Amino acid sequence: MKRRKLIIDCDPGVDDATALLLAFAAPDALDILGVTVVAGNTGLVQTARNARIVRQIAGRADVPVFAGCARPMVREAVDAGAFHGPSGLGTLAVFEPDAPLAEGHAVDFIVRTLRAADEAVTLAVTGPATNLALALVMDPAIAAKIDEIVMMGGARSAGGNITASAEFNVFADPHAAHVLLTAGCRVTMFGLDATYQVLSSPERVAALEAVGTDAARASAELMRFSNGIEADPGRRAGAPLHDPCTIAWLLDPSLFIVSGAKVAVETNGGLAFGHTAVEFRAGPREVNANWAVRADGAGVFALLNERLGSL
Amino acid sequence: MKRRKLIIDCDPGVDDATALLLAFAAPDALDILGVTVVAGNTGLVQTARNARIVRQIAGRADVPVFAGCARPMVREAVDAGAFHGPSGLGTLAVFEPDAPLAEGHAVDFIVRTLRAADEAVTLAVTGPATNLALALVMDPAIAAKIDEIVMMGGARSAGGNITASAEFNVFADPHAAHVLLTAGCRVTMFGLDATYQVLSSPERVAALEAVGTDAARASAELMRFSNGIEADPGRRAGAPLHDPCTIAWLLDPSLFIVSGAKVAVETNGGLAFGHTAVEFRAGPREVNANWAVRADGAGVFALLNERLGSL
Amino acid sequence: MKRRKLIIDCDPGVDDATALLLAFAAPDALDILGVTVVAGNTGLVQTARNARIVRQIAGRADVPVFAGCARPMVREAVDAGAFHGPSGLGTLAVFEPDAPLAEGHAVDFIVRTLRAADEAVTLAVTGPATNLALALVMDPAIAAKIDEIVMMGGARSAGGNITASAEFNVFADPHAAHVLLTAGCRVTMFGLDATYQVLSSPERVAALEAVGTDAARASAELMRFSNGIEADPGRRAGAPLHDPCTIAWLLDPSLFIVSGAKVAVETNGGLAFGHTAVEFRAGPREVNANWAVRADGAGVFALLNERLGSL
Amino acid sequence: MKRRKLIIDCDPGVDDATALLLAFAAPDALDILGVTVVAGNTGLVQTARNARIVRQIAGRADVPVFAGCARPMVREAVDAGAFHGPSGLGTLAVFEPDAPLAEGHAVDFIVRTLRAADEAVTLAVTGPATNLALALVMDPAIAAKIDEIVMMGGARSAGGNITASAEFNVFADPHAAHVLLTAGCRVTMFGLDATYQVLSSPERVAALEAVGTDAARASAELMRFSNGIEADPGRRAGAPLHDPCTIAWLLDPSLFIVSGAKVAVETNGGLAFGHTAVEFRAGPREVNANWAVRADGAGVFALLNERLGSL
Repeated sequence: MKRRKLIIDCDPGVDDATALLLAFAAPDALDILGVTVVAGNTGLVQTARNARIVRQIAGRADVPVFAGCARPMVREAVDAGAFHGPSGLGTLAVFEPDAPLAEGHAVDFIVRTLRAADEAVTLAVTGPATNLALALVMDPAIAAKIDEIVMMGGARSAGGNITASAEFNVFADPHAAHVLLTAGCRVTMFGLDATYQVLSSPERVAALEAVGTDAARASAELMRFSNGIEADPGRRAGAPLHDPCTIAWLLDPSLFIVSGAKVAVETNGGLAFGHTAVEFRAGPREVNANWAVRADGAGVFALLNERLGSL
Repeated sequence: MKRRKLIIDCDPGVDDATALLLAFAAPDALDILGVTVVAGNTGLVQTARNARIVRQIAGRADVPVFAGCARPMVREAVDAGAFHGPSGLGTLAVFEPDAPLAEGHAVDFIVRTLRAADEAVTLAVTGPATNLALALVMDPAIAAKIDEIVMMGGARSAGGNITASAEFNVFADPHAAHVLLTAGCRVTMFGLDATYQVLSSPERVAALEAVGTDAARASAELMRFSNGIEADPGRRAGAPLHDPCTIAWLLDPSLFIVSGAKVAVETNGGLAFGHTAVEFRAGPREVNANWAVRADGAGVFALLNERLGSL
Repeated sequence: MKRRKLIIDCDPGVDDATALLLAFAAPDALDILGVTVVAGNTGLVQTARNARIVRQIAGRADVPVFAGCARPMVREAVDAGAFHGPSGLGTLAVFEPDAPLAEGHAVDFIVRTLRAADEAVTLAVTGPATNLALALVMDPAIAAKIDEIVMMGGARSAGGNITASAEFNVFADPHAAHVLLTAGCRVTMFGLDATYQVLSSPERVAALEAVGTDAARASAELMRFSNGIEADPGRRAGAPLHDPCTIAWLLDPSLFIVSGAKVAVETNGGLAFGHTAVEFRAGPREVNANWAVRADGAGVFALLNERLGSL
Repeated sequence: MKRRKLIIDCDPGVDDATALLLAFAAPDALDILGVTVVAGNTGLVQTARNARIVRQIAGRADVPVFAGCARPMVREAVDAGAFHGPSGLGTLAVFEPDAPLAEGHAVDFIVRTLRAADEAVTLAVTGPATNLALALVMDPAIAAKIDEIVMMGGARSAGGNITASAEFNVFADPHAAHVLLTAGCRVTMFGLDATYQVLSSPERVAALEAVGTDAARASAELMRFSNGIEADPGRRAGAPLHDPCTIAWLLDPSLFIVSGAKVAVETNGGLAFGHTAVEFRAGPREVNANWAVRADGAGVFALLNERLGSL
């Protein structure tokens, strides 16, 4: 597999952290040009620190981290603290990372990097899409330099999580998600339909922990924190593992089935604000995204174990 | 089981027809005060005729049929002709029924009947909810005379059918569905989540036809028509049987699992127009409906066979 | 001038009362088939009584009064008590009228009357349009029997009164106003643009009172009440006289300049809920209403003095 | 008067051009840190050139011009070509300016300049507010460095121009206007209510032309172009002079009366998309803008003559 040039735009966040670790653990496959952070699961100060904590755990000081937007494009900020804890990393011990943020704003980094790119770059977006959306508004021509946008967000058959009809990432910046989905890029979306098929059951978490590396132990601890909040004994074996699906897709697309769809975001305020309308019956010219419909949960965890074991 | 006083508000419509046959076949359980029709699956002229055709097949001339609204409350009419054929009854041979419509407007019949009722009346609504909504606006006090509104409509985990986010009955008159859901009545909703669990597989249709009565044969023919349009070989064994779920619930609630939820309708125009937001995490005072989450498809067909065999 | 057949649909309401008095005082020009009332400026119980009080003051027991809807079509009820006082008639002494309400619901009266009409009937709507909208939904064919809908409602150059962007009557039932404006009828609308040109200055009120009839004195008292709330000394000589513009138009159209426009109502919730978009640049096939742009305030008061003096 | 530090964000555009000339002609009062351009009245390529043409006419090569966003934040672009001609400068002879654009993106220039400012900076926004809105999203802290946002946009008593309910600048990027109005800055808005009081009558245009400088002659030619499109003989003496009101306010606030208001933008799609709701009855803590209600048209033209005569 050709090594992909990749920017990871995220808001760590417990599940972003595992996504980052998985990406950091795949230098053969992913050439990570930078990590950009945004307010989302927690505030920008925290996500900017947490990304560097995760980078340090992974021993990847070579990857620059850029701070981005502290607020969504249009709407007021949404708080998701209950799902990620005050630090944004659950019960993981947080510390002041050794290496600082890179100079400059995440949006400028994205614009500059894409403008200068001589081969197309992939964007993995695991938080509210504010940074990339602003970059696309500042310079729409960068869309032509994007190979693929792989984003965690939205929900079709699983309703919503933050509201009855909306998933958190899209709800937290629906306008930004709209910009991504209408920019003419190839988009692959991992919504709740897929991520609820990748559950962090206690057995899987124990197996990951047993891998024994710092990265694997940290990831396992983050999953245990989520399980404490979201597992639903008797109905659901563990919390859904949202964000890592994006990186898993880049590393092994055979773990997922995606289906071409016309995906649109409700940006009007009201009951369905942030809802994703996913229409599989769209004509070929209307299809603007690949929507993940199936995920191989065991396979994703096998990939995690293998990769995090190598860090 | 106590005999329930019932008004059936419908737009036959192939699946309404089976719902009506099932209700007509249960005189021991259901005291049908009247059938009211509305434009929906097809025009009012057709639904008013089709309800009488079905009544005649069932030999229930004792039940009056009232014509209601020829258009939705606020929005323009939606066409569903593709799913019900030009006549509204698929390939069933239509004829001019012997007995005429009852005098008066369906909305007036509902208002008058509920006002005069000395025991609470159940409303089964299997089409756009225009008639009952108008009755509730004309006289909000009739809500107190309603035992239960049992309606086919909405979608949560199954997305939509008429649009990516909306089910036909609610989409066809979202404002009317909103009126029903905010009237303070007990509401039980059979959305696509449940009705897609009641599939008219060829085996089930054949078994129903073998029952041998006129009603069973007519119902089987209607299902074959739907299967020709909606079955998806390899993925889905037959078309979903939407409307009969409401009557099946009244006859045997053990065939379904319902869960209390706060259900609201998106009445704002746009992408999610007619979407139902179904929130199971609502507090007890917010819950306004029972939402059907599970259906025993085999059980519903066994009930159909038994009841239609008795007509 | 040919005598017009007229139904007055209203929610008295201080300015509705003057509108009714003006209509009652013009038996040569207006053949009032009935007065229908709706909840709006105050509750239905009050408006149903107040219409009969006004009828009694005018000595027009020949005109039947029908109670209509106690709530708007879709939205929750809006309270305008601050502008009309607890009774709905300001400081006017209210009493139990001698004559009762007519039997039957206002909506049924409208449907029945229009169906039976052998000449087209005019509808003057001075409250939320709920009653007429329900009639049009119950039987869309009655639109062909409507000569003209003359309604008080909306705002263009005067912003709003109940919100920054919406006028009370339309805001109180935007969906109903939408139904009227899309029914294919001839509509003439008197919004705030016109009604703020008809001000009840103290001099005009004094002149009206000096006319000396019971009707004139009652009308003057109602205006004084409104002036106490809405006059803005130094900027505005008196309160705007909203509802009587509709009847004045029927009696003497030369008092107004109207301009063909495409008028539409914002029925989506949010900032502009109930806003009327008035587009004068519409093509001939898009024009659906005459919008009043100029009013001869002195002329309207001269008409009031003359007519109320004759009662 | 203290010299104000000023950034002018614009989309020239015929009326922007006069606004720029007026600002360039007032070096005693305005310390113009830069001019930023955006797509709006015409495309970004044109506005970026036109700003430099105007700069060259004014002989102000000292002021840098930065190109900004080529599209609105969320919505699709709106075309206003009919009002500004293919070049964006009506019939004015366009040419390739001597001096180039400054390096870097307008949004970055705004962020960088405000971050570094040791005294508060004023922003005059005469086009869609995309650039400043993006800057505020990229770094919300810059709001504290803004002395005042003076923007042309919105409409209250004058309805709309691009739609029945919306003014062009706000309609062209409603989300951006929303961001400005909710950023906690002091905002002064010149909507159509005020700008329609500043009409370029033929007499005024002739007097301006007679001033005789290049700037005055160019401005007069631009106004003649607008008059050819927008003047309405018999009703309106000339086209409204929109954008120059913002600069005139900075130079002589006595030319306007503004009133504190709560101003909000309808960002929901539909009939009222881009509508500004202007509520004068807001409480002191709700007021977020000064809304221009009166303009001294003759005074604005006298100021233009004086200033453009000095260039």
